[in-house]
Amino acid sequence: MQIAMIGLGKMGSNMARRLAAGGATVFGFDVSAETRNQLAADHANIRSFDSVASLIAELPSPRVVWMMLPAGEISETMFGELTALLAPGDLIIDGANAMYKDSQRHAKELNAKGFKFMDAGVSGGVWGLANGYTIMIGGEKDAFAMAEPFVKILAPASDRGWIHAGPAGSGHYVKMVHNGIEYGMMQAFAEGFALLEAKKELNLDLAEVAETWRHGSVIRSWLLDLTADTLKNDTKLEDIQPFVPDSGEGRWTVLEAVELGVPAPVIAASLFQRYTTQGKGDYVAKLLSMMRNAFGGHHVAKK
Amino acid sequence: MQIAMIGLGKMGSNMARRLAAGGATVFGFDVSAETRNQLAADHANIRSFDSVASLIAELPSPRVVWMMLPAGEISETMFGELTALLAPGDLIIDGANAMYKDSQRHAKELNAKGFKFMDAGVSGGVWGLANGYTIMIGGEKDAFAMAEPFVKILAPASDRGWIHAGPAGSGHYVKMVHNGIEYGMMQAFAEGFALLEAKKELNLDLAEVAETWRHGSVIRSWLLDLTADTLKNDTKLEDIQPFVPDSGEGRWTVLEAVELGVPAPVIAASLFQRYTTQGKGDYVAKLLSMMRNAFGGHHVAKK
Amino acid sequence: MQIAMIGLGKMGSNMARRLAAGGATVFGFDVSAETRNQLAADHANIRSFDSVASLIAELPSPRVVWMMLPAGEISETMFGELTALLAPGDLIIDGANAMYKDSQRHAKELNAKGFKFMDAGVSGGVWGLANGYTIMIGGEKDAFAMAEPFVKILAPASDRGWIHAGPAGSGHYVKMVHNGIEYGMMQAFAEGFALLEAKKELNLDLAEVAETWRHGSVIRSWLLDLTADTLKNDTKLEDIQPFVPDSGEGRWTVLEAVELGVPAPVIAASLFQRYTTQGKGDYVAKLLSMMRNAFGGHHVAKK
Amino acid sequence: MQIAMIGLGKMGSNMARRLAAGGATVFGFDVSAETRNQLAADHANIRSFDSVASLIAELPSPRVVWMMLPAGEISETMFGELTALLAPGDLIIDGANAMYKDSQRHAKELNAKGFKFMDAGVSGGVWGLANGYTIMIGGEKDAFAMAEPFVKILAPASDRGWIHAGPAGSGHYVKMVHNGIEYGMMQAFAEGFALLEAKKELNLDLAEVAETWRHGSVIRSWLLDLTADTLKNDTKLEDIQPFVPDSGEGRWTVLEAVELGVPAPVIAASLFQRYTTQGKGDYVAKLLSMMRNAFGGHHVAKK
Repeated sequence: MQIAMIGLGKMGSNMARRLAAGGATVFGFDVSAETRNQLAADHANIRSFDSVASLIAELPSPRVVWMMLPAGEISETMFGELTALLAPGDLIIDGANAMYKDSQRHAKELNAKGFKFMDAGVSGGVWGLANGYTIMIGGEKDAFAMAEPFVKILAPASDRGWIHAGPAGSGHYVKMVHNGIEYGMMQAFAEGFALLEAKKELNLDLAEVAETWRHGSVIRSWLLDLTADTLKNDTKLEDIQPFVPDSGEGRWTVLEAVELGVPAPVIAASLFQRYTTQGKGDYVAKLLSMMRNAFGGHHVAKK
Repeated sequence: MQIAMIGLGKMGSNMARRLAAGGATVFGFDVSAETRNQLAADHANIRSFDSVASLIAELPSPRVVWMMLPAGEISETMFGELTALLAPGDLIIDGANAMYKDSQRHAKELNAKGFKFMDAGVSGGVWGLANGYTIMIGGEKDAFAMAEPFVKILAPASDRGWIHAGPAGSGHYVKMVHNGIEYGMMQAFAEGFALLEAKKELNLDLAEVAETWRHGSVIRSWLLDLTADTLKNDTKLEDIQPFVPDSGEGRWTVLEAVELGVPAPVIAASLFQRYTTQGKGDYVAKLLSMMRNAFGGHHVAKK
Repeated sequence: MQIAMIGLGKMGSNMARRLAAGGATVFGFDVSAETRNQLAADHANIRSFDSVASLIAELPSPRVVWMMLPAGEISETMFGELTALLAPGDLIIDGANAMYKDSQRHAKELNAKGFKFMDAGVSGGVWGLANGYTIMIGGEKDAFAMAEPFVKILAPASDRGWIHAGPAGSGHYVKMVHNGIEYGMMQAFAEGFALLEAKKELNLDLAEVAETWRHGSVIRSWLLDLTADTLKNDTKLEDIQPFVPDSGEGRWTVLEAVELGVPAPVIAASLFQRYTTQGKGDYVAKLLSMMRNAFGGHHVAKK
Repeated sequence: MQIAMIGLGKMGSNMARRLAAGGATVFGFDVSAETRNQLAADHANIRSFDSVASLIAELPSPRVVWMMLPAGEISETMFGELTALLAPGDLIIDGANAMYKDSQRHAKELNAKGFKFMDAGVSGGVWGLANGYTIMIGGEKDAFAMAEPFVKILAPASDRGWIHAGPAGSGHYVKMVHNGIEYGMMQAFAEGFALLEAKKELNLDLAEVAETWRHGSVIRSWLLDLTADTLKNDTKLEDIQPFVPDSGEGRWTVLEAVELGVPAPVIAASLFQRYTTQGKGDYVAKLLSMMRNAFGGHHVAKK
């Protein structure tokens, strides 16, 4: 049971470890020699290769190649490189957080060349190594037959945390929606805790409240578990920047809501709040300040 | 270990059962003779009284009286009735979903008369009987000493699902915020599943996706567990009205966000979406339709 | 001064009339013979043609052809037809509410064939015939030199209601943003009037309030003028459906906000509210109702 | 025709000037001797008093006393002072941006003592002196009969910019909603211009676009006029702080929407965006950053 893992970053390396621990032999490649060699040194079932070409040369066909690279240019380059090396019937699984329409295009292009393709959404973060990853995967049935043994190792021990969701694109679509929901849940929790924090007169212990809600309440959830852990160490968060990055999935979810005609005010508001923390709403605010001055003579704060 | 339970509706009766099963003797009253007698017939540890006066007469002081009545007029009337019957040092616990400011007022009024008061937020819904309830309770320490044995029976077996959150009002404040978060989480999930449902071309199995997300994903939660159960029976929901009631807590959370100056766009959007499903935004929509006609000559749909 | 007007619907016919009244000779075509002939019968300066081919045959080059067709398939077909008939150096102006990216593509394709292209956003609705239209137009300078005389007739008498905004695409981009703002303004007004209407105890006269605000207030605007007119006839709107269509511009504005990273919560909320009036949020609401039942045993309204 | 004006700040002094120019004799008081004396020095029809008591002593009953003080403690103190000085039948008009419920309470308290009371919302900002103010006023008919001559001077020359909206409280209610709409309109414009500004590749001239929209477009409005003026001087706004204050009316509008059950997502979003610019959402953002770290190991930006 052999699989190639291309990209051994935070996600890829942990997935390689879980696959290796589950009995697979992992042919690993990463641009960082240190990363790939360290991983191979740590695990008997993980081998390190200094190029994709040498890796493919040693991995017998039909191959299963799991890509864990950033979506976009880096992934596109690797697709090109792999198609030059692989044999018809080989399977490429794209585990990146890629836009599902791109995955549908990749499927079409790769299938036309005789390759199989699946798009896999992977959830579970840094905890996936221990707990297993939720795998949402899309593509043809014969492709899935090749992927299935590996998907089952990656998924939680319950063997229920994976889904062959449908045709190519559906894995990344389901993952995109998962992350859109995640944005909304996170924002809901953060607003709620901010309301606890702001109620100074009640002097609430946010860590205790979070811990309590974990037991029996309607909002108990893994995100609450993690939030409770975080608050145990620090509830004031004084040295933290109020800055929240966003990645593609939140944006794509809102784009999809607009295009499908599904009202998604909560997911959109969550995304826009993140934009605002990044300073992307500064021009909006500056103009509002100027307008207030123009009609009401109100003070404009200058830098 | 004796406690009065006033109000034996869906929540009160189950709480009485859990208290009785946990070793307390419950002195029960409900306006419905059938309800209170049936409950007493079912449980050796639950006694039924045909008036609050007769109940209080038999329960020796210092008494613990837990009210599970609708907030507002019915609760206010009962506060009045109880203060005429109780003895100084007795404790009233209001377990309703009451506005925390009302509870702060109740505390002040009752304390002035020598009674003790606590406000208790109770979460767990219909599952609380079996799993235990999350109890968020506020008031003085000596009052909590009287309440504690009962709180511990009501809470989950882990003995971690309760919190003495702070002074009077803090129980209902924490419960209010809990429900505000719940609104946001629910809306986030509903938007997400609607995006899966609307993507007809992928023909996704929503029940399978929900089940998968329960295992290892970032959004795993009790609400997701329940949603997965619901979707197992029916994913089309064709005979369901798109109508979502709201109760006080969502509104109060938004009021509090405005007053405290905490931006809560997600909780507010969740509340307003519920209003809209109730037809409360119809005038807004009608006026928009008329405005479109006025500037663009666009068609106005008539009833 | 001759110009072709292709598409004589609500907008196209009024624009033809304004051009004719301003001294231009309009070569008109519409698929409806009745429409085009009636228009020509009414105006000495408007000529009717029974095909685009016959129109182009009579209009000497270099031609200015203004398309007022629905964006999408109909427009695309006409672009194809026109490129087979026009001569190099002729100018096509697309006055539809088209996506600016499509207009950038059209510019590229048409320029490659030697034609000129401009994209024109046209605002003013049914009032444009009398008051003039705001014209936001994009494309090359030499193309604009050809379009300018006609743009100036279409614009208000002040000769200030037009802008050559920039390269191809910029006309439709500016018009898209204009409509996005319009969505937000309309929703703001509609929410406000709904708050007046709902305050039954004050028995406010909404028509009088609207009229008052027109004079001296900060929110005086043309949309308020129109709203005041509408409310003069009817403030109850009892026979109006709470249904608000939306067209491309609102959607595109939100897509652009997401892609550019500009937080636009108000424009997005306005769009999603329209979706909701169209029943597009029904699945969201149904699922919320089911979730409430699942955790709290709350009643689910059935159809 | 004599009237007292208590409070000669930005609004009060301009209103005194307009009243004086319109033929009224204004008995002015302000805590700042410099302010009140300068005003009296500038205008023959304005008299300055060094105390409210001396002012009232010289103004014969039945008096009309217009208060232009900040709502809250300062206003409450003045209400107390005035009731000690005035005679039954005298009229107090509160022109502050006060909460309409407070005005209803003031009406009840003052009427019980034999005084008349009206609440007046005043819109028009720094431009009101020249253009007239929109006056929205509430109270009894006999009170309005006393106020009417002054209201007509304050209002625009058209004599249409005022409304006796209904009973006490209705003036401030209508003004509150006016400002709620204003928040939404401003945010809609600011989002739109931010979308123009962010589209670097089109290199749009925002000042030119704003000027163009003023002529014939659907969104033409006084706020757009002012925005166009502002942008003529500066479109980059580089030295402006992205900070937008808010005052009571926006908050009260959202509170009212929640209490009345009217969905007002746009006004609420506008308010919350202002809160965010004031740093009031920082805890929300910090917690989101911590949660991302907790599940995904994502980097947390530190101060």
